[in-house]
Amino acid sequence: MALSPYKQLELEWKRLHALRGAVSLLRWDAAVMMPRGSAAGRGEQIAALETECHAVLTSPKVSRLLERAVAGQGSLEEWEIANLREMRRHCDHAIAMPVSLLNKLIRTSATAESAWSDARQQNKFELFAPHLEEVVRLVREKAALLGQARSMDPYDALVDEFSTGVSSELIENLFKTYSRRLPELVREVIAQQEAIPVLPLTGSYKARQQRALINEVLRAIGFPFDRGRIDEASHAFTEGISGDIRITYCLSRQDPFIALLGALHETGHALYDLGLPKPWLDQPVGQARGIALEESQSLFLEMILGRSRAFVRYLRPLLEKHFGGAGPEWSEDNLYRLLTRVRRSAIRVDADELTYPLHVMLRFDLERRMLQGRLAVRDLREAWNEEMRQRLDLVPVNDAEGVLQDAHWASGSFGYFPLYMVGVAVAAQLAEQMRRDLPEFDDSVSRGDFVAVCGWLRDAIHAQGARLSLTELMDSATRKPLTATAALRYLERKYLDNSISI
Amino acid sequence: MALSPYKQLELEWKRLHALRGAVSLLRWDAAVMMPRGSAAGRGEQIAALETECHAVLTSPKVSRLLERAVAGQGSLEEWEIANLREMRRHCDHAIAMPVSLLNKLIRTSATAESAWSDARQQNKFELFAPHLEEVVRLVREKAALLGQARSMDPYDALVDEFSTGVSSELIENLFKTYSRRLPELVREVIAQQEAIPVLPLTGSYKARQQRALINEVLRAIGFPFDRGRIDEASHAFTEGISGDIRITYCLSRQDPFIALLGALHETGHALYDLGLPKPWLDQPVGQARGIALEESQSLFLEMILGRSRAFVRYLRPLLEKHFGGAGPEWSEDNLYRLLTRVRRSAIRVDADELTYPLHVMLRFDLERRMLQGRLAVRDLREAWNEEMRQRLDLVPVNDAEGVLQDAHWASGSFGYFPLYMVGVAVAAQLAEQMRRDLPEFDDSVSRGDFVAVCGWLRDAIHAQGARLSLTELMDSATRKPLTATAALRYLERKYLDNSISI
Repeated sequence: MALSPYKQLELEWKRLHALRGAVSLLRWDAAVMMPRGSAAGRGEQIAALETECHAVLTSPKVSRLLERAVAGQGSLEEWEIANLREMRRHCDHAIAMPVSLLNKLIRTSATAESAWSDARQQNKFELFAPHLEEVVRLVREKAALLGQARSMDPYDALVDEFSTGVSSELIENLFKTYSRRLPELVREVIAQQEAIPVLPLTGSYKARQQRALINEVLRAIGFPFDRGRIDEASHAFTEGISGDIRITYCLSRQDPFIALLGALHETGHALYDLGLPKPWLDQPVGQARGIALEESQSLFLEMILGRSRAFVRYLRPLLEKHFGGAGPEWSEDNLYRLLTRVRRSAIRVDADELTYPLHVMLRFDLERRMLQGRLAVRDLREAWNEEMRQRLDLVPVNDAEGVLQDAHWASGSFGYFPLYMVGVAVAAQLAEQMRRDLPEFDDSVSRGDFVAVCGWLRDAIHAQGARLSLTELMDSATRKPLTATAALRYLERKYLDNSISI
Repeated sequence: MALSPYKQLELEWKRLHALRGAVSLLRWDAAVMMPRGSAAGRGEQIAALETECHAVLTSPKVSRLLERAVAGQGSLEEWEIANLREMRRHCDHAIAMPVSLLNKLIRTSATAESAWSDARQQNKFELFAPHLEEVVRLVREKAALLGQARSMDPYDALVDEFSTGVSSELIENLFKTYSRRLPELVREVIAQQEAIPVLPLTGSYKARQQRALINEVLRAIGFPFDRGRIDEASHAFTEGISGDIRITYCLSRQDPFIALLGALHETGHALYDLGLPKPWLDQPVGQARGIALEESQSLFLEMILGRSRAFVRYLRPLLEKHFGGAGPEWSEDNLYRLLTRVRRSAIRVDADELTYPLHVMLRFDLERRMLQGRLAVRDLREAWNEEMRQRLDLVPVNDAEGVLQDAHWASGSFGYFPLYMVGVAVAAQLAEQMRRDLPEFDDSVSRGDFVAVCGWLRDAIHAQGARLSLTELMDSATRKPLTATAALRYLERKYLDNSISI
């Protein structure tokens, strides 16, 4: 008997899943294992596989199968209908993007990324600006086409590609809530913290010792070492597939928390992948519910769990064990103060939980103005510095620490920045609900028992795959629509009242 | 202007090259880096990419382009005509193989390999026999189809897929030459060697020290560490592409030569890949001239160079440096005796240069009889043991050290074994010519200067890619047709007269 149109589509996506898994491994290898002289060949391999993926999604055969499957979806199960919806969305995005534009964007952003890297080294925005102008022009074209295809505002269509269900309206609402309280809160917390002395860690921490600490912590959390790896790299990231997850950390000899918290961040991604619904792993409905949700899981582990009192209590004896850390700077109180220190700084990736949203708001604002034609790329540096002054009360000392600090725009990723912030809001709202559901939370974490925490996240989020929309998922997990109020409550209690341990 | 049919074919092969490079990296990762629980997903990825490669080679579009390109080949250059010839051969092989048979063979041999592994562990050929029977049945079917398509004897068509230009006739001729002298030579050499005492190495050699030694030797030989890696693995192999070559070695604490000579073997493959003609790297004419030639390069480095007097002279001070090797067992004479010790043993991969051909002849004979229906799989063990008795004067103590020792047949690789032996003959004939062309050979190798040796191999073999046939290549490199006489001369002089240093 011939397979139904829907079943035929499942086979096409099974193949896509295999191709994408191969791409992910090729990327991991390029960043972790590949000899430095081998980049050109790797680029060809990745391009060949991505072209193949695009060809599947845009093939007339798949379009016809989708039409027929949708017409007959009355006989499908709920998961299958959700799967079909995700397939359609992926195809809509791919079909809306002409191959010529796709290739132009890939080539232009590759050049722009390398120009960005040079410009950053030389501290000269002018060197990057003409390349960024070209990228913005192509991304506007892309946004217009995607917007048309998805019946959305062009910017929203870009966001939709990364994280469906997140709209400008939602982002603006979250930011409005933040804006009302955050600038004042930052001032109050900094004033309060200045009154309390903090002892810095002044040692040098060996790679081998940091690695042993990370392994012990990740083992406790449940990182699947039989179906995943953790390696050192020049930046922290997650690649791979659910059955073979590859995470990296980036090492600093001076600050042992950079590698550890970076590893926790990536473990958040890894646990998400690991907890995805097994029967749907090679289908779109079996993937994570977009970047905002992805980031919520990594931020939960890095920020909410990793910088909690309870976690510091668990961590202190491990630091003593692995680094021989004794003396007053290794006390629980001092370590907690180190991990929750708030400071206005120019660099997003170094920012603490409180000032981080300000960095993102700035970027959201500027990238939308560029795409809407309200801000010319040649005026971007000035606008950047002005926004920094207003939002963070400082001016970057140079372009490298200012407008040139992130690679996102060079690579054509517009609509990505605000998702970090949506992730923060999601994470805080999940944490609030989790604390209600798990009253023993602090005790278990202090003991290094993460079973209940990870189990809660798995059931509420990971095991749902992409079955529900973002709204439905938040409703099912927290019985509330997504807002920033839980995030603000969390920040107030943790940083002002010191009344919260998670 | 539209591209010519030939140029369009070049683009198709460029894509194939990228896909195959990706497969190779996925295989390397599976053997060296992948967590042990991640095999299933990797299998899917490799299968998806191989299916894609097969689809390209069998597509009506490529067939039409080939026809048109051949019709217009009058306007092509010599390299392009050779490229077209290689393209055709690859397509002929792919088209002759129905996808259904291909998939059956992949599935059956995967099961057979795992049954082989179990059977080997339990020392029971009976557990493997029914699976091998099924593999033999499918390989016979494949051989018949390939033979028809290539107008060849079925067995020759299997060999042709691995190494075009090698026929049963050539193999039989080589073996005839060997058979006339080798059994007697083995006896004489063993008798002679028994009179001379050899001191074994009795220490334990740290992984770190062995690694440092290997790195130093490979650096001297010219392994491209900026476009390649060397890692420890459970077996020695080469994967990757010319610009990103990945070799492995397998470590024994007791015998430091296993890892070193294994690494030399793989470096032979790596240098071949590295020396392929740059402008043709992503085309079939830019690939190595088949397995026999591949093996000739690895055997040259491992056996002819690596077990030469001159090389031992170079190596001795390095062994002292890395292992602190002093005392009589580390003398040049004793080390050379250790590396050229001849012993009859049951295991092919442990065999020395002199007895190795006997192991291969046995397999060539048995696999042809199985494919021709003259030997039933159920009688294979008995036939194996009988052949061992006749050829090597010993009987394996059990199946694991006998009929179950190799994975080749389980994986469906019939027609592969004799290519090791063709490689030996090629290597010896090249070495003989090289010694004529490079009279300073011994001196340079003793000093650790491998520039002339590697340069000779590069010009004569590597840089030719697959432009010439095997016959043409041997003629251009050695001005002789390929025979086993150089190999026998080499063995006689090295093992009996001690009059040869390479």
